[in-house]
Amino acid sequence: MKKNLPMNRAEHAQMAMMLEVCAYPKPGNVDRCHDYPDTRLEHFLASAILARPVFDAAEKTGGRVGTLIREAVQCTNGHSGGNTHFGAFLLLIPLVLGGDIDGARAVVAATDVEDAVEFYAAFGLTSVRMAESDDLDVNDPASVAAIRERGMTLADVMAYSAPRDMVAREWTNGFALTRRCADLLHAHGCGRESVVAAFLDLLATEPDTFIAKKHGEAVAERTMRSAAEVLDGKRDLAAFDAECVLAGINPGSIADITIAGIYVALGEGWQWDC
Amino acid sequence: MKKNLPMNRAEHAQMAMMLEVCAYPKPGNVDRCHDYPDTRLEHFLASAILARPVFDAAEKTGGRVGTLIREAVQCTNGHSGGNTHFGAFLLLIPLVLGGDIDGARAVVAATDVEDAVEFYAAFGLTSVRMAESDDLDVNDPASVAAIRERGMTLADVMAYSAPRDMVAREWTNGFALTRRCADLLHAHGCGRESVVAAFLDLLATEPDTFIAKKHGEAVAERTMRSAAEVLDGKRDLAAFDAECVLAGINPGSIADITIAGIYVALGEGWQWDC
Repeated sequence: MKKNLPMNRAEHAQMAMMLEVCAYPKPGNVDRCHDYPDTRLEHFLASAILARPVFDAAEKTGGRVGTLIREAVQCTNGHSGGNTHFGAFLLLIPLVLGGDIDGARAVVAATDVEDAVEFYAAFGLTSVRMAESDDLDVNDPASVAAIRERGMTLADVMAYSAPRDMVAREWTNGFALTRRCADLLHAHGCGRESVVAAFLDLLATEPDTFIAKKHGEAVAERTMRSAAEVLDGKRDLAAFDAECVLAGINPGSIADITIAGIYVALGEGWQWDC
Repeated sequence: MKKNLPMNRAEHAQMAMMLEVCAYPKPGNVDRCHDYPDTRLEHFLASAILARPVFDAAEKTGGRVGTLIREAVQCTNGHSGGNTHFGAFLLLIPLVLGGDIDGARAVVAATDVEDAVEFYAAFGLTSVRMAESDDLDVNDPASVAAIRERGMTLADVMAYSAPRDMVAREWTNGFALTRRCADLLHAHGCGRESVVAAFLDLLATEPDTFIAKKHGEAVAERTMRSAAEVLDGKRDLAAFDAECVLAGINPGSIADITIAGIYVALGEGWQWDC
């Protein structure tokens, strides 16, 4: 009798979601020790649990990436915590469908207009806002008509959003930051401290576009420089975390990319448990 | 398009495991703010995630309760955190199979010798110790032979352990404390504070048999009285928690029963999210 069973891709995706939210301290984000008033640790963990059927379907029977993203949102938005993992699903669904980064690139390359329409339906289920400059407003039925008229695939929609959204940008650059995050995890070694270290490395080198949309580019740049000061030993991590939480500065896009990075690293043998 | 989907039984079981371990402060146990050196929050959450296929099987296709318990242990013991949920699975598997407490009672009543043999196989995969007085040692192959010879069903095995194990006792008394825990959750209202309140109510009225096996009856009784003093306002909850953690006094059996109580309460409409 086998003593235990290896994890499948769906489980790697769920574990990545769980490990990311539990890791602490992660400046500004919900973590083991911090909630926001409306979004709590339990909301993120519920989302990790409830996404399972969609990850299972993606792994076992494949399916349309746009539809699976919409279904992941539908499975996980039954709580009051708002959108917890929309960006993470944008990365995890192609990764689980394709298995790894190479496979995810192939999934992205094969998207079509129907995927884009399904994505807009998913978007409409969330409270995620597009940048104000976007003319493809998900609350405007005319947007779907415009997508069909222009023949935009989901990859085209992501390319359209990429300048202002680092999660969408992963679709256009071959999952470059996801790859970097996985490499950082391998470099930092096993366990949860490695998740925090990889997260801080990304935060110190990339302006988070979720922060930029909410607070402006300048705040995103300043947060990046502050994270670099933490790594240089010039700023205290706990104090930086407290400042971010107080100001509602949460690097949500880097969190999404960290989840994708953990998924990839787990598939490459990185050990979460040490 | 439905905005979100209702949870099924498997998801209620996983949510119960997640909500129990996140609730804090729970004196002496792993919670959001406390780990033990070898058993951490992430181990409990990994177990909640990885048990899904077994809960799904129990809900959708039924199956043998002893086999499902063994499979749940096999799905979830691939980490270094030791046995996190053996007692919880003893309660959750019949509850998911039967749907609710009435259904679980029927499952218990229908167990046979093969369930008992499977249970011993599950037990052998864990580091759970039986009380020293037990002559049915799971590490002794002769025990399985003895079970077959005596014609003991899994319900008989639980009745044999019931005097020294409050989780086994649930099988013999119709899930009485599980029922009481669910009633306490309804009475305390929605959300995670209610989980802590129900846990403390149980701790203040029942000596935890996991503590008794590890530290002796006197310590279990003393812990119960201390919990009652917390409820009477005569003792500080945080200080009591710290004392328990320092002494390794963890009420693991009451945690298992709390998980079962949350499962039942969720099925009856109790709201975790408020």
